[in-house]
Amino acid sequence: MLMDGVDFDARIHTPQQIGRKALAVSLSDCAAMAVRPRWVSVTVALPDNWSIEQAQGLYLGMEPLAEAHCCRIIGGDTNSWSQGLVIETCVVAEPWPGLEPVRRGGVRPGDWICVTGVLGGSLAGHHLEFEPAVATAFNLATGFKGRLKAMMDISDGLSIDAARMARASACTIQLEEAGLGLVVSDAAIAASRADHRTPLEHALHDGEDFELLFALAPEAATALGPGQAAVTTPAGNAVVAYTVIGRAEKGEGLWLLDMSGHRRRIEPAGWQHFVK
Amino acid sequence: MLMDGVDFDARIHTPQQIGRKALAVSLSDCAAMAVRPRWVSVTVALPDNWSIEQAQGLYLGMEPLAEAHCCRIIGGDTNSWSQGLVIETCVVAEPWPGLEPVRRGGVRPGDWICVTGVLGGSLAGHHLEFEPAVATAFNLATGFKGRLKAMMDISDGLSIDAARMARASACTIQLEEAGLGLVVSDAAIAASRADHRTPLEHALHDGEDFELLFALAPEAATALGPGQAAVTTPAGNAVVAYTVIGRAEKGEGLWLLDMSGHRRRIEPAGWQHFVK
Repeated sequence: MLMDGVDFDARIHTPQQIGRKALAVSLSDCAAMAVRPRWVSVTVALPDNWSIEQAQGLYLGMEPLAEAHCCRIIGGDTNSWSQGLVIETCVVAEPWPGLEPVRRGGVRPGDWICVTGVLGGSLAGHHLEFEPAVATAFNLATGFKGRLKAMMDISDGLSIDAARMARASACTIQLEEAGLGLVVSDAAIAASRADHRTPLEHALHDGEDFELLFALAPEAATALGPGQAAVTTPAGNAVVAYTVIGRAEKGEGLWLLDMSGHRRRIEPAGWQHFVK
Repeated sequence: MLMDGVDFDARIHTPQQIGRKALAVSLSDCAAMAVRPRWVSVTVALPDNWSIEQAQGLYLGMEPLAEAHCCRIIGGDTNSWSQGLVIETCVVAEPWPGLEPVRRGGVRPGDWICVTGVLGGSLAGHHLEFEPAVATAFNLATGFKGRLKAMMDISDGLSIDAARMARASACTIQLEEAGLGLVVSDAAIAASRADHRTPLEHALHDGEDFELLFALAPEAATALGPGQAAVTTPAGNAVVAYTVIGRAEKGEGLWLLDMSGHRRRIEPAGWQHFVK
């Protein structure tokens, strides 16, 4: 569910952009588990001053993405009210043939912690334009069959999402600055110029990256430590690049090993929906 | 999707009442097609001044109803924002074994138009307390197997929903005052005392009755005109009472035959979510 003023700004973003993002976020949830999206129900609460063209714009933004993922828009519920735009997409997915869904609780001490892509500064545009990593997740699951231990998409921020993965797996995740430095996006660097935070902090906490965070069995990773790597699918038709950013250990919580070898706890600081 | 100020009033209604209604409305959509609810995803946008107890209240209101219908709450999305409460339930349903889903477009000239229960005045309390007609719909579909031509639940109001059924079926629906008089609720009579509208107008236009509106093949109805009737399931374990309130004819639109034999068009006037 995306809400005006929280997940988008209806004064700035077009209905097409908002509709696309609503579906993309749900497809990213399918990528997170390496499952296959099939059907989507779309439900909206439209501000009562919206025109029919604006309402249609939401669907125009969704349709190319739905088609690209063979995910059929099957219905939903259209409402109007005097408050802000709310758009909800509920995707029904199924396991890919021969693949089990991947969960967040399967990390074990010794596993490598990895991410796809680069992180941080998503607010500058990436959060509206990202490609949901459905195919990447499928390729990871087939390329690392049996050795992909856990996976999530990074929606609320690496620091929050990695802490959740550590908690669900009852272990520590130790990120290494040497690895994280490789996944800092240009947008994170640009954002750091506009505020008092470092590019690394942007990469850790900004959120809405919609990249994949995953754990590999110790024998799966080709590197002996942080660094870039790639995996080829068994059919040889796809290569997925990824970066090893840390390792799981016995313990709890999320930790950072900095360049000088000091270890400190990372306080999750991405987006949290707060309830008193 | 239910929204504060439209489908409930969070100042008056308890979280339990709101949660129950949200699920009940979606289960009523399952009743409308005579299908079996199985799983439900629950997504909320909570006002940011809500407590965790209020949020939990929504689920406490849903759980007994979900259990009674063997419909499992499987997940969803919890958000907060600075605007009004929004709650969305997305139910995944499947056909009952041996039964095809019933649609709204199957009415043919000569069919009897029927409703279960009584209509009007729902705002006095029925809209929060109604039992979704899932079992009634199953019993109608088995009792009238092959002769139940079309069905809907009455959510926006008989006048709107019957007009939609007529349009989807490309025929006229003619309601008869002689039949409608039998389905005016006590709440509709009470409501008519408080305003300038008649009990019949309340029954036609109030909405949120969540009763079943359905069409029977000519040979299925025991009556030769408007009146009360009942059907027993083949297994003999259930009897569904219903009222014949009109008939389908060639043509278009929704018409009312009054007691003096005059025929006039009914303008749909229930709840409409308006988009400019």
